[in-house]
Formats: sequence, structure tokens, C-alpha cells
Amino acid sequence: MKDLIDILELSTDDINGLIKTALDIIENPAKYSEKCKGKKIATLFYEPSTRTRLSFESAMLELGGSVIGFSQASSSSASKGESVADTVRVVSCFADVIAMRHPKEGAPYVAAKYASIPVINAGDGGHNHPTQTLADLLTIYREKGRLDNLTVGFCGDLKYGRTVHSLISALSRYEGIKIALISPDELKVPNYVKEDVLEKNNMPYEETRSLEETMPNLDILYMTRVQQERFSDENEYLRLRDSYILNPEKLKNAKADMCILHPLPRVNEISVAVDDDPRACYFKQVLNGKYMRMALILKLLAEKEAGRAQPLKEEGDLIRGEIKCQNPMCITTIEQELEHVFRLVDKEKGIYRCIYCDSEAKR
Amino acid sequence: MKDLIDILELSTDDINGLIKTALDIIENPAKYSEKCKGKKIATLFYEPSTRTRLSFESAMLELGGSVIGFSQASSSSASKGESVADTVRVVSCFADVIAMRHPKEGAPYVAAKYASIPVINAGDGGHNHPTQTLADLLTIYREKGRLDNLTVGFCGDLKYGRTVHSLISALSRYEGIKIALISPDELKVPNYVKEDVLEKNNMPYEETRSLEETMPNLDILYMTRVQQERFSDENEYLRLRDSYILNPEKLKNAKADMCILHPLPRVNEISVAVDDDPRACYFKQVLNGKYMRMALILKLLAEKEAGRAQPLKEEGDLIRGEIKCQNPMCITTIEQELEHVFRLVDKEKGIYRCIYCDSEAKR
Amino acid sequence: MKDLIDILELSTDDINGLIKTALDIIENPAKYSEKCKGKKIATLFYEPSTRTRLSFESAMLELGGSVIGFSQASSSSASKGESVADTVRVVSCFADVIAMRHPKEGAPYVAAKYASIPVINAGDGGHNHPTQTLADLLTIYREKGRLDNLTVGFCGDLKYGRTVHSLISALSRYEGIKIALISPDELKVPNYVKEDVLEKNNMPYEETRSLEETMPNLDILYMTRVQQERFSDENEYLRLRDSYILNPEKLKNAKADMCILHPLPRVNEISVAVDDDPRACYFKQVLNGKYMRMALILKLLAEKEAGRAQPLKEEGDLIRGEIKCQNPMCITTIEQELEHVFRLVDKEKGIYRCIYCDSEAKR
Repeated sequence: MKDLIDILELSTDDINGLIKTALDIIENPAKYSEKCKGKKIATLFYEPSTRTRLSFESAMLELGGSVIGFSQASSSSASKGESVADTVRVVSCFADVIAMRHPKEGAPYVAAKYASIPVINAGDGGHNHPTQTLADLLTIYREKGRLDNLTVGFCGDLKYGRTVHSLISALSRYEGIKIALISPDELKVPNYVKEDVLEKNNMPYEETRSLEETMPNLDILYMTRVQQERFSDENEYLRLRDSYILNPEKLKNAKADMCILHPLPRVNEISVAVDDDPRACYFKQVLNGKYMRMALILKLLAEKEAGRAQPLKEEGDLIRGEIKCQNPMCITTIEQELEHVFRLVDKEKGIYRCIYCDSEAKR
Repeated sequence: MKDLIDILELSTDDINGLIKTALDIIENPAKYSEKCKGKKIATLFYEPSTRTRLSFESAMLELGGSVIGFSQASSSSASKGESVADTVRVVSCFADVIAMRHPKEGAPYVAAKYASIPVINAGDGGHNHPTQTLADLLTIYREKGRLDNLTVGFCGDLKYGRTVHSLISALSRYEGIKIALISPDELKVPNYVKEDVLEKNNMPYEETRSLEETMPNLDILYMTRVQQERFSDENEYLRLRDSYILNPEKLKNAKADMCILHPLPRVNEISVAVDDDPRACYFKQVLNGKYMRMALILKLLAEKEAGRAQPLKEEGDLIRGEIKCQNPMCITTIEQELEHVFRLVDKEKGIYRCIYCDSEAKR
Repeated sequence: MKDLIDILELSTDDINGLIKTALDIIENPAKYSEKCKGKKIATLFYEPSTRTRLSFESAMLELGGSVIGFSQASSSSASKGESVADTVRVVSCFADVIAMRHPKEGAPYVAAKYASIPVINAGDGGHNHPTQTLADLLTIYREKGRLDNLTVGFCGDLKYGRTVHSLISALSRYEGIKIALISPDELKVPNYVKEDVLEKNNMPYEETRSLEETMPNLDILYMTRVQQERFSDENEYLRLRDSYILNPEKLKNAKADMCILHPLPRVNEISVAVDDDPRACYFKQVLNGKYMRMALILKLLAEKEAGRAQPLKEEGDLIRGEIKCQNPMCITTIEQELEHVFRLVDKEKGIYRCIYCDSEAKR
């Protein structure tokens, strides 16, 4: 494994290994403080994200390495029209590992294809954000002592929330996970998540509009933001809004050891009055994200050093250059020279997915 | 002491201690070159300031530490509406000390309240900029050998110049300081500085419009910029402008060992022809600023390590949530969830001040 | 020598020395990994350039030093109207060497004049970019084993391409160099390059519009971009465009060991289908640029340490403040306090050149 683009590229063994390393870092930080001496991470952030960027940078610095990069597209050569492929080949001359954030879906996949050094997806549009999921998993593990046999509630915008989809996928590989999907009708989890993940893996789940009724059952409550602009009907938004804002009142029915997560930044979907509640784990999540990024950087550099860094494989039943990806957020829409490639994912129904952004297409 | 938000939080003993450390750093830089190994400063600059930011960054690097941060709001999560409180709690997971610059007054106070690590105010609007004052004080000390028994002239915009107000406050605690306030009528020092600082501390001062007449008396001349937009009458501006531009001609009457300070950046209020004059100390001031920031970082980290880092105390006669701060530059105007808090500063007159921006209010 | 502003400030001995150091760095990186411990480079980029900035930063980091700076003017004090002279005097308090990129021609010259530390020109408008030329030279040396007796073709925009002019100048000091200038009529090399460099040094050269006919003779092909906006006649552009795009078809007639260079970023002037051709050296060029910058930083710091850092000399027959530079891209157009200075370069014809931007003027 050379890169990390999608959380599903990691086996449960991989994840358990990363958690083990993270716990050891927490116990023995001095042991790791020179592990990456002389190494550099390049943080290529085509759109700003303080928290994620600073997390990667502090992770590398705490391993004794150093940092180069840019924090928005306007201070990069991208403003001169350089392709992602060229940029990462250039950056491969300067750094040892890349963390890339990009507004277009699939950009980190392109980067991984052309960079000679490991690429970590630090968020590509609404698509993937695997290191957030690693932060979520370590937090659950540290708070509950396990990743299996948990009832996990997801609340808010379950339609567009990439962190929700990723965490559900990651949890699908553990035993005894029950899922509660709490959202307004407008923002329900997409069907492919239910079909391809929940039902395929026989995970029990319920869909509900009521946070309050579901609260008492939850071991984990994963909050996300409900944005007004997602609603066609403003009255509907105003009617529902308050029911998805977490406050001390709503927490009264929760388990005493429930764990509240949020990918941050929050706006007002968790009241600041909740911050001092011992169940509020969203700032711990930030710290855990740093440790998991440290573990991940170590793993990718070690695999490369050992010659085990297998580049992305474009395997399967592929069609090249025949159909075009219709997703307006796909990296293929702005990079002219990229070949449009689709992979057959459902032979029976003839369904293909774009190898960059995973959008569905039929031949 | 956990943070440095306002220069007056430092006692004269604190300031003497910082000066002593700075002088030792200048004498023995090698002794300090690894003092902060493994430590990180986060420079959170919500508006750009090359000089101040690079000063903090080079200070930390010369102590063997490293740097993370952002140099303008648009490359931070602030553009997504994250509160200062949340941002600093997140950054507390990544760094050991924060230097914050913010266009809104009181933002660093909010930061200090929520960060678990020391926060240094690197300038909040027109409010405070304590490390500039530390640079001024070290420069005066190194040039004159003392901080007492000096005649100090302030020239230019004394109304809006926060560095002027801070340095006057800081000097008010030393013996034998005489102040000359040289400005057009439009830009005179505000009354509260005269009443609360100069008169309260029995500091002799004179107000004048003439730089040339005052020049011969001065040990220190602190220049600031007179901006056209401060004048309602353009003719008045044009008439006065030249009298506040320092040039070799005007320096003829000055003492041979007078010391010229300026907080920089200058535009044209000091002619470049003055730069080679041995009395020009404004670039030395920059260097001294770096040394004082090194001393300050060391002090705050040492106090935290020793468990002596007392967080901000909201003491005194406080009223909470009852009146709203009317200062349009106050951080409370943009951060919705901040409680408006005022402290009674004059019982007799019933005057309160906003704990964030120090604006006056009556109950 | 204190600074590097123009490639011609380096003698061939200097260049050979830098190449020797670079080759040693490539062979023995560990020997150099702490050479700049405790040193800092300031990357002052008044306009964005990922590749050049990250190259300087990674160069310093691989020497064990560290980095401060800004990546665009809007995050610097320049947005407050601070002059380049003041900025570099300030930065001289913080760093040990400056790399400056500026949209105005001559800005790094001004910087060198006022900074107390070495200044490296990292590109000033369309004027100079000496470290790009160092990258080109090391690449030619490593690929061909020599810098003399080569036939070098330059293709594309030879009128505005500063990297073309610099490399021709640099090569003019080696024996047996033949030059092929391949461009549309609109974009031919300026006359002063032909007269002052090629003819003065008796370098054989040919001008041609046909890349294909010239191809078989070339040892080196230096590609640049042909921009539509350079053409007054759009039809002319469309007619010519394809003939200056390098693709596998056109390479069929090239020597098997020809070396293809490009200063990057490219847009489409080299087809991505060429990238896997062993003759494509433009990504190697990036790596070589880093090594030459490492060698240059070492050289400038060593010369300063040894007290051999001679500041810029304004020698020759100079006229000061008498005529104004008419080049709208000259730094003198935006920095009001800069004295306009011209140097007599051709006594007979009475031709002067601006000491900042090298623009011609007559008295």
C-alpha cells in the first residue's frame, strides 16, 4: 500500500495496527520524536482547512520531520493552470509524503497515480476524508474500549455528510454494530449506502426523525450540521432545525457514558453549553486525529522504505475513454488531459463507477 | 500568569525579568538554541502582518522550536464560521503556545479564555499589542541604559495609535518619566489616557502641535503615521502633514543621543534620509522585538510547566448578559455565542468596561 | 559576492563550483543534512510560485535549516504600502538568507542593496530568474556530461521568455555552443540578445520557424509556452500553435540521447504522451534545481561568514535622478522613494540601462 485515498483501502488489521501505534505514541511520545528526522510532508491544500492542515503539520513535526506546502489554491501554481499530475510530480522532488485537500472529487486519486511518494487524501470535495474516519475510530476505541458491539447514532445531514458515509463503511467490518440514522426526510442517507453497506453487511439499522426518542439507546452519537440551503422549503427547515441542535436538555435521556462526536467545525448544531459535559468528545477527537495521522505517516513511509508500497492498481473490468463522468464535482471536469475511466461494479445491472469520484454511470 | 493579552498584566518585575532574559539571549544565543526543542508555536493571524508574524516565528525557531499557523483569515476555518473559542481549543491539540492577531478587539482575550495553552496577543484591532511595547522597552533600555528619568515624545496620530497608549501605560510605572504629546488637534491622545494613566500616575506631560519646538528636550522620539483619512478637512491635512514628517532638517535641534522609534511599517512619516542617522533605532527595534518575544515564550512555557500558569480571572464587580457592547470593533459583534460581560471600573460614576475590548459603558 | 540577482554575476568558475557541490550533495546527502542547522531562509514571494518556493524551502530544510516567509503579497506588509527596502531590512533581523520573487523587475536588486543578509532573486517579472538557469545547467551537465560543444534549440516564445535569455547568456561563456532559435515571427528573440550575447560572443546561431526541420540537429531542446495573448492575429496563432506543441510524432526525428527541458509549469506545449520518453528531462530539472539551490545557499552563507560577501557595487558611469525609467514593470514605478539610476553601457551610442530592470534609455 503506497497511498491512502479511501478508508476502505485499509483492512481491519491495518486499522488495528494504526490504533496500536497511536496508543503507543500517546504512551511514549519521546520514542517517536525523531522517527521522521530529515523527512518532509507537503500539505497541498487547494482549499483552506485549518484543522486538517494543522493536524497533519503538527503530526509530522511531532515525529521530528518538517513541512512545506500551500494553504489555498491562489498561492499555488494551480492558479497558472498546472495539472494535479504535474504538481505532484514536482512535489515528489521536494517531499517524502503528500497530504492533499482538493475541492474536486478524485484529485487525490490522480495525485496518487502520478506521485512517486505516498499521497494521503485530506478531503476531496464531498467524496472521501479517510483520516477523519481514523480520528473517529481511535476516539471510539479510547472512549469505549472496543470497536464492536456498539449502537451508533448519526444525526443531521446524512445525505451529504461524507464523514458519516465513511464511518458507517468502516464500522461495517466490525461485529455487533447497530446503526441509528436520525435526520429529516430531506437529508436521509443515500440508498447506495443502505444497499451497498448496511444491507450487504447485514447491519441492523433504523431510520428516524427523532433524536430525542433514539437518544437513550445510543453508545455513540455522531452529530453533523443541518444547513438551511439543503431545504427547498424554508418553513420545513425552521420547523426541524431545533430538533437537530444538541443541548443539555436533550442529553438528559442519554446514557451516562455515551460519547458525542462531531467532525468540526461546528456552527451551532451543538450548543456550547454541552462542551463541559464529560460525554462531549469532539475536541478529544481532534487530538486523536493527530495521533492517527502520525501513525499513518509512519506506516506509509515504512512501507515505502521496505519496498512494499504498491501503487494504486486500476484493476477490474475497466472501460477507458468511452463514456464521460457526469459529476460536475469530478476532477475530470477541470483536468483536460485525464482519461475518463470507469470500473464495472455490478455486472448484472451494468453499473460502472468513475475510478476518480465513484460516480455511477451506465454504459 | 498563563497568557499575555495586555501589557499591564506584566509587573515591572516581570518586565525587568524579560529584559534580563533578552539580554542574556543576545549575549549567549547558543545557550538558548535548543530550549524549545519539540515545542511549537501556532501563529494565528486573522489579518496579515509580516513583521509581527515573522518575528514570532523566528523567535520560536531560534529557540529550537517549530511553527504552524495561518497568515490570513481566508486560509483558515474562520472562513467557514468557526468561532475563535473553537479554533483555539482545536489548536491547543497541536501547539504549545499561540500568537494571535485579529482585526476584532478582544479576540485574544476570548482565545486565552478557551485555549489550554498560553496565548499571546499579537495585536487586536486598535486595542492592544503588548509585544510591540516589549520591543519598545528593550530598545529604550539598550539605547539609554534605563527605563526611568526620560523625556519621551510621541508624535503624529496619538488618538488611534495603540502602540502609543500601551507604551505610555508601561512607562507610567517608572520614575521620572516626562511625556510630550505632539499632534494635530484632530489626533490628540484620548482623554481616558490623560485621566486614567498620565494624571492618575502624576506623570508630567505637555500637549503641543509643534515637533520642532519640542525636539530639543527629548530623549526618545516615538513617531507614528498621520493618515489623511483621519482628517475631515483636507486643507487642514495638507497644511499639517509636513510638520509631522521627520527629516534630517528637523533633527538638527535634537539631542545627539536621542533615540528615534517607530512601530513600523512606515510610509513616509520618517524620510529615508534619516535611516543612516545613528539616532534612528526603528530597525534595531525590530531585532529587539524578536529577543523580547523569545524571552516571553520562554517565560510562558516555563510558568505552564511549573504549574503556575493561572488562567485569566474574570474578577471584580461583573455584570453578565445585561448590556451589550456598542463598539463595532468588539469581538462580541461577530461571535454570537459570547456572553457580553462588563466590569465596574468606576463605582462613583457607574462606569463599566467590556472585558473583551475595554470599551466604556454605563449601566 | 553577497547576493545572486543575475546569472551573469556568476563566473564559469563559480558555476563549476556550484555544480561540483551539487553533485557531492547528490552523492552524500547525509554530509549536508546539518550544514545549515540554526539558519533560516526567508521566502518572500510577492506573487505565488509553488515550484520555486517549495524548491528553496526544501533546499534549506535538507541542509538542516528552517523557513519563514510569505507566499503572496496579500499576506505581507506590502499590502500596507511598506517598501521593499524596509521589508528586507526588517527580514534581515529574522533570517540568514532571502529568496525573493516579485512581479516588478529590479525588486530583488533593491532588496540586495538594503538587506544585510544575502538575497537570491527567485524571479522578478520577465527580467531574471538565475536559479532556474542553474537548474538548467546542472541538468544539461548531468545528462550530457559537459556544458560545451552542444547544439541547443530554444522553441516557442523566445521574445518574453526570460529563462531562454538567461540560459543563452550563461551558455555564451562555454566553447562550441551552437544555438537554434525556433519560434514564430511574433516571438523571435529580441535584437539585444542577438547583438549583445550571440554576436558579441561569436556564437553560431540560426533562426527558424520549423521545429521539425531543426529537431535532428539538437542535443538539447528547451521548450517554452506560446501564449495566445502574444498574437495580434488570432488566425496566425491558430495556424502556428500546433507546430510548437511537442508530441511523440515530432520526436521521431530527434537524436536518441536528446534532452528535453522546460522551465514548468507547462500547460499543453508538451503533450503528456512525451512524459514517459527517456529524453523528457523536465521533472529531473526540478530535482536538479533543488540541488543547485542547496549549493547556492551554502556558497552565499560561506562567503558571508568568511567576510567575502561584497555588496552590490553601483560602479561605472552612472547618472542619478536625471532621467526616469520608462519600463512600466520596473520597481521604480511603484516605490516612490527609489532614486532612478542609469548606467552607461554603450558610450558611442549614448545608451544607458536602468540599474534595476536593465531597460534601455538615452540621455
